[in-house]
Amino acid sequence: MSKKPSIPKGTRDFNPEEVSRRNYIFNAIKETFSLYGFQPIETPSFENSETLMGKYGEEGDRLIFKILNSGEKVKKADLISLEKGNLARFSSSLSEKALRYDLTVPFARYVVQHQNEITFPFKRYQIQPVWRADTPQKGRFREFFQCDADVVGSTSLWQEVEFVQLYDAVFSKLGLKGVTIKINNRKILSGIAETIGAEDKLIDFTVALDKLDKIGEEGVKKEMREKGISEDALQKLQPLFSFKGSNDEKLNSLNGLLGGSQLGIKGVEELKFITKNIETLGLQTASLEIDVTLARGLNYYTGAIFEVSAPAEVNMGSIGGGGRYDDLTGIFGLKDMSGVGISFGLDRIYLVLEELNLFPETVSENSKALFINFGEKEAMYAMKAITKLRNVGIKAELYPDATKMGKQMGYADKRNISFTVLAGEKEMESQSFTLKNMKSGEQSQVNFSELEVFLKS
Amino acid sequence: MSKKPSIPKGTRDFNPEEVSRRNYIFNAIKETFSLYGFQPIETPSFENSETLMGKYGEEGDRLIFKILNSGEKVKKADLISLEKGNLARFSSSLSEKALRYDLTVPFARYVVQHQNEITFPFKRYQIQPVWRADTPQKGRFREFFQCDADVVGSTSLWQEVEFVQLYDAVFSKLGLKGVTIKINNRKILSGIAETIGAEDKLIDFTVALDKLDKIGEEGVKKEMREKGISEDALQKLQPLFSFKGSNDEKLNSLNGLLGGSQLGIKGVEELKFITKNIETLGLQTASLEIDVTLARGLNYYTGAIFEVSAPAEVNMGSIGGGGRYDDLTGIFGLKDMSGVGISFGLDRIYLVLEELNLFPETVSENSKALFINFGEKEAMYAMKAITKLRNVGIKAELYPDATKMGKQMGYADKRNISFTVLAGEKEMESQSFTLKNMKSGEQSQVNFSELEVFLKS
Repeated sequence: MSKKPSIPKGTRDFNPEEVSRRNYIFNAIKETFSLYGFQPIETPSFENSETLMGKYGEEGDRLIFKILNSGEKVKKADLISLEKGNLARFSSSLSEKALRYDLTVPFARYVVQHQNEITFPFKRYQIQPVWRADTPQKGRFREFFQCDADVVGSTSLWQEVEFVQLYDAVFSKLGLKGVTIKINNRKILSGIAETIGAEDKLIDFTVALDKLDKIGEEGVKKEMREKGISEDALQKLQPLFSFKGSNDEKLNSLNGLLGGSQLGIKGVEELKFITKNIETLGLQTASLEIDVTLARGLNYYTGAIFEVSAPAEVNMGSIGGGGRYDDLTGIFGLKDMSGVGISFGLDRIYLVLEELNLFPETVSENSKALFINFGEKEAMYAMKAITKLRNVGIKAELYPDATKMGKQMGYADKRNISFTVLAGEKEMESQSFTLKNMKSGEQSQVNFSELEVFLKS
Repeated sequence: MSKKPSIPKGTRDFNPEEVSRRNYIFNAIKETFSLYGFQPIETPSFENSETLMGKYGEEGDRLIFKILNSGEKVKKADLISLEKGNLARFSSSLSEKALRYDLTVPFARYVVQHQNEITFPFKRYQIQPVWRADTPQKGRFREFFQCDADVVGSTSLWQEVEFVQLYDAVFSKLGLKGVTIKINNRKILSGIAETIGAEDKLIDFTVALDKLDKIGEEGVKKEMREKGISEDALQKLQPLFSFKGSNDEKLNSLNGLLGGSQLGIKGVEELKFITKNIETLGLQTASLEIDVTLARGLNYYTGAIFEVSAPAEVNMGSIGGGGRYDDLTGIFGLKDMSGVGISFGLDRIYLVLEELNLFPETVSENSKALFINFGEKEAMYAMKAITKLRNVGIKAELYPDATKMGKQMGYADKRNISFTVLAGEKEMESQSFTLKNMKSGEQSQVNFSELEVFLKS
């Protein structure tokens, strides 16, 4: 006897309830993407290695799952590199394809490859799994879905406005109130770095600032000092650490702080366009908040930066994020293609909805009624009714075997099917059905039309 | 400048129209699965190698995509096997995980692993991609979706009856009339082999018989002779080559042909149960036809065998298939778990619907209206209307830039958006909108409620 089988660490099986709940979230996101004019594309699960390698930094290259060449091709193994301990090169000699690491690089590849068929501005969404050879831990998986929407080919800030509305629309639809959409602008971060004379340390500066929530003012300052940012610069930064008030007030302080930085002022103007127009249009349940510490560690953002926080009562961190990038497709040779996009964190949204009990009971795709099987003749009587019910869209099923009634009732119970239908000789004679409510135990005798009306409701 | 990027051979990008059309088919299948009481599960894209290897024969093992171990693990490369030319063993030493080759083995693994949480009979469906390192050719890909529904844990033939109904329901829903559901029974094939004294050559016998459509009577006989089936046996087989008439007539001839084979008679009885009950229940647009040459080359079927043919006017071959297997989960140590299942061939169904022009025009998730952008003030006026339209589920979008009208109109045209909405100073003053039909060129001035009613229809 073989031992009980298992799945690779960091991967998951999803049972029917989990699939239904995940689909509930996917559908809310998809419907909203579509409502906002985004159209779906799909790309292959694996890409040519050269498409992915070198796009995510050294760490990223290590975390990309490589596909072993098939058949004779493995003979080309570069054994000299193996001997020398150059494992990356050895691995490359064995692999020409790799699993998608995110949806952004494949999207850039798609845009460049299909640029002549695409109508720009191109509004696309993409919901597909990605794979990372990361160390699995709570909430971090080796296979997980990303849900991205991007527009490429226009620099209009109305798109940022719409993305804020879109976040609000999705979370409102999911019943998740009190979400905070934090917004910042890379130009402001650059402007601040410029003003304090630390342009060359922009990355160090933003990485440290990004940690304000976690390590506090003193921690951030310590890290900045270690990275060589001067006391004088830290002095100038002081207002950032006590940045409060309405979005308008924050924009005003920023104007002061940024002094003469043209780039910084441009960032403030962009932010102002977004916050002002969102204020006019209104949001359903979310709020939009300027957060100058928001950097998302991502080097490729050039304008707006978004991050969505779950309501304060759940301790979950970011459930979505995105921003404006000015040169996404440059890596594949297509220059000057500005884009802006956002992403939803499915797994975390799932945990938040679960914790707050926000999944509707009707999410699961369960049958409305189980017909009890009393034998061949009775089963045919039941199947005729079931066939008619299915034709009008009512989910019903027959217990396949004419086994003990207790077992059949137990099945309905475990499957959480609310009603059973009993039809034996007596019912067949009077062309009726006995309908039993599995919760209350109540029974009533009905004809077919009554059954249909009842189960439809 | 880098060269234009591409994707691995045998894989595909799907553009918005293709994704929408594929989803149209997926949704018809999913809704019907669900209507029949099947519930969705999902399994990881990759499994532990030992779960997959050895389950699909030697050829299958070669076609499984293996994932290269990450980091230091590649040091364990078995160089001696490489030297000896044992490439399979060399590859195994570099890989512990492999991409899903079909949905059946992962399903068996799922059932065994989760047997204590599952309520049997377990009706599950699964729609996920699979990967095969096959030589790509027209209609054969290295990444493609499978759509499977199976029941495990019951031997009831009502399930076979329901699968016939299910096929009919899906293809009727897709508007694909004239589909033929062919049915056979492995027990009949075994019975015939027994009767002609060729039990030990059952596989050779069925593989040859399966080719009747392609190579004709003489071809089949030639192949059988080559495999050592006697002239006497071929003589007894003769009625099979001119097997005609209604299902009832075929069942009668089979009874004659099978003589004393108990197993064969059992198969005939099973077939009779299915055809008789389907006749009573009726089908919407498909027909059910006994085909004793149907073997599907698959060794694990033990009872019913299904195959669905597209309407005769399209030259496509099988668009679905399945059958009963008595020991699916035995490979993972769980015995006596009978199952029966069917599968839909998405890519071929797509081609058939395309060829017969059966995709509804409304399949694509396109916006109903594009609002022309005349500048910041006008864009805000438009965005207010768009926001309200989206709140009631109407897909509308704003052209992001206040660029030339011709360009914006051209965009609507290329994106196939049927209506544009123009709102400049004049419309803003009178709180109205100019609605333009992009096909007819017709224009009319409407207020917001009129616009909403119009776009909703």
